[in-house]
Amino acid sequence: MAGDTIRFGILGCAEIARKVSRAITLAPGASLHAVGSRSADKASSFASANGFPPAARAYGSYDAVLDDPDVDAVYVPLPTSLHVKWAVLAAQKKKHLLLEKPVALNSAELDLILEACESNGVQFMDSTMWMHHPRTAKMREFLSDSQQFGELRKVHTCFAFAADPDFLENDIRVKPGLDALGALGDTGWYCIRAILWAADFELPKSVIALRGPILNTAGVILSCGSSLYWEDGKVATFHCSFLENLTMDITAIGTKGTLHLHDFIIPFEESKASFSAATESGFTELVTGWVPKPSEHIVMTDLPQEAHMVREFSRLVASIKNNGSKPETKWPTLSKKTQLVLDAVKASIERGFEPVEVAI
Amino acid sequence: MAGDTIRFGILGCAEIARKVSRAITLAPGASLHAVGSRSADKASSFASANGFPPAARAYGSYDAVLDDPDVDAVYVPLPTSLHVKWAVLAAQKKKHLLLEKPVALNSAELDLILEACESNGVQFMDSTMWMHHPRTAKMREFLSDSQQFGELRKVHTCFAFAADPDFLENDIRVKPGLDALGALGDTGWYCIRAILWAADFELPKSVIALRGPILNTAGVILSCGSSLYWEDGKVATFHCSFLENLTMDITAIGTKGTLHLHDFIIPFEESKASFSAATESGFTELVTGWVPKPSEHIVMTDLPQEAHMVREFSRLVASIKNNGSKPETKWPTLSKKTQLVLDAVKASIERGFEPVEVAI
Repeated sequence: MAGDTIRFGILGCAEIARKVSRAITLAPGASLHAVGSRSADKASSFASANGFPPAARAYGSYDAVLDDPDVDAVYVPLPTSLHVKWAVLAAQKKKHLLLEKPVALNSAELDLILEACESNGVQFMDSTMWMHHPRTAKMREFLSDSQQFGELRKVHTCFAFAADPDFLENDIRVKPGLDALGALGDTGWYCIRAILWAADFELPKSVIALRGPILNTAGVILSCGSSLYWEDGKVATFHCSFLENLTMDITAIGTKGTLHLHDFIIPFEESKASFSAATESGFTELVTGWVPKPSEHIVMTDLPQEAHMVREFSRLVASIKNNGSKPETKWPTLSKKTQLVLDAVKASIERGFEPVEVAI
Repeated sequence: MAGDTIRFGILGCAEIARKVSRAITLAPGASLHAVGSRSADKASSFASANGFPPAARAYGSYDAVLDDPDVDAVYVPLPTSLHVKWAVLAAQKKKHLLLEKPVALNSAELDLILEACESNGVQFMDSTMWMHHPRTAKMREFLSDSQQFGELRKVHTCFAFAADPDFLENDIRVKPGLDALGALGDTGWYCIRAILWAADFELPKSVIALRGPILNTAGVILSCGSSLYWEDGKVATFHCSFLENLTMDITAIGTKGTLHLHDFIIPFEESKASFSAATESGFTELVTGWVPKPSEHIVMTDLPQEAHMVREFSRLVASIKNNGSKPETKWPTLSKKTQLVLDAVKASIERGFEPVEVAI
C-alpha cells in the first residue's frame, strides 16, 4: 500500500548517495521520490543514473525537496559543515532525517539538530550502515553472552584507507570549511561507534589521544588515534587514518571470549559476512596448539546492510506516520554518544594529549 | 657425527622445559644430555618423563649441570629473578645460553648476562619461539616488500590469557620475588618483540603507557598496555594481560598493505600456520565489497617452531665449537632492544604514564 511506503528525498548528489539510492530502491517500505542539487541538471542526471522511478522529481535546490509535501523523509549526505543548517530545516519541515556521518562538527551542533527533530516529532538516524547488518546483531549476541564472552575488558578498532593524491588535495574531507573533522570524523567515527557498540554504549569516563596525529597544512586531521577509559577498568584504543592501506578491524576481548573481524564497516562480500568468535580458548597439553580454536561464523543477508538500514528507518517513520508512534530515541542517543567521544578525542589532541573527561 | 650434535643441559624442571626437551629431541643437531633440579629425584623423574636418552644425567643441583664437561649449552627456564645469577655462571663455565623470556628484570641485569656471554665467547639466544617459525620469515618478506606492503605506519599487538585463580595466587609470574615483571614480562615481552619485529627492529623513540594497568596486592602487573612512537611518525600500541580470554594478535598496517594474524605466539595448529595479507585493498564500484580481498597464506612446517629455534641455536653453537666462528650478535641485540622497550613501559607506568624516552 502506498501509505506504507516512505518516500525519500535526497539532498545533494554525493557519491555515497548512489549507494543509498540503491538501498532505498531495494528496501521494502521505501521509495525514491526526489533529489535536489544546486544544479537541476545534475539532479536530473543523478535521478536517471540511479534508478529513480519516472514519477520522481529532480529539483534545482535543497529547499525544493524540503518543500515537497510528498517527501516523508530526507537523506542528507552534504558536507558536515552544512548539516546543522539543512538538518534543522528538514526537521522544521517535518521531514524525517537520515543523516550521513559524521553527523555534526561538534556536540553543540548536534544538539541543535536533535532538538529540532524532537520538537518536530521526526525520526533521526545517522547513516552508520554496519550497525544494521544482521552480522552485527549476531556479534552483539556473542558479546552479551556471559558464558561465551564474559565481561568486556579491552577493545581495539581501526579504520584506515589509503586516500589517493587527488583525495588528499581536493576531497571535502580534507577541507577545513567542509568536513573539518577530517579522518577523525570520517574514519574515526566508525572506530568510536564500534567501541561504544562493544561496550553496549556505556560511555567511557575519559579519553587520551595518542601522540603523533598527522594534520594537513590546513590543520585537518589525516591520521590519529586515542585511548578510552571506563570507570570499571575497561580500556579501548583506536586508530583512524587516510594514509594507510584499507583496514577495518574490531577486536573485542572479554574475560571468557574474543571477537575478531576485519571488515566491520564494509563486509568483504555483500551477501555474506563472517566474524571469528573464541570462547575459553586454551592450549593443547604441551602448549603446541589451541583447544578450542576460534570459530568462524558466517551470516548471510538477502539485503545489503544499507538496505537493512533504510528498511529499519522506514519502519520507524511509518509507525510514526501511520500509528502515531513516538520517534525511536535509541538512534539519536547513539549518535550523541559517538559525537561526545569524538569531541573529547579532538579536545585531547588540541590540548596536547591531556586526559579529557567525556561530557555527559 | 657426535661432534656435530650439541648436548643440552636444562636448569630446572619448569613446565615449559617439557616442551623445550621435546624440541631438543626433535631438532637435528641437538640432544638432551642433562637436567638439574634442587631435587635429584625430581630431575630423574623429569628426565624419564621427557624422553632423555639412557646416557643422560639427572643432577640434584644446577651447578652440577654447569660443571658437566659434556654439556655444550644450557636452557634456562628459571624464574626471571634468578636469571642473572645462573646465566652469568653458565657463561663463565663456557656454556652456550638459551634463556627463557623475559630474559632479565631490567636492562642493567641483561647487560651483565650479555657481557658474560660475550667475554666467554658463548652464544646467547632468548627463547622467543615464534621468531623461528617459518611463517615468521614469510610474514617478514611481506612486510619488507615495498610494493606489497609499502612503509609501516601502525602496529597493534595483544597477548592476553585468562589465568585461573590458582595461577593468580601462586604462579611465579605473580610473585614480586620471582617474576616481578608480571604480565608485562610474560605476555608484554611478546607484544613488544612483535612490534619491534614489524618495525624491522628500529627502536621507538619514546613510549607512553596506557592508563589503568591492573596490579595485584603485591604490586605485580596483571594487565597493562602502552603506546610507542618513532621519529618517522610510526605508532604502535599493545595490550598484555593475565585477565582475559587467550588472544594473540599482530596487526601491522603499511601504506600499501595490511598483515593480520591471531595466533602469533602459539599457532592454532602445530604443523601449519597462516596469516592474512592484504595489498592495495579497495572497494567494488558502489563500495559494497572489497577488491581485492585479503589473502590467506598457509605455511606448513615439518618441525614445531621451538625445534626450529633449537636447531638454529645449535647450528650457531656448532659453528662456534667446530669452526671457531664468533657468536651471532643478532640474537642478544634483539633481546636487548626488547628489554629496553619493556623497561621504558615499566618506567612510564611507575611515573604516572609520562612519556619515557627509550634508552639506547
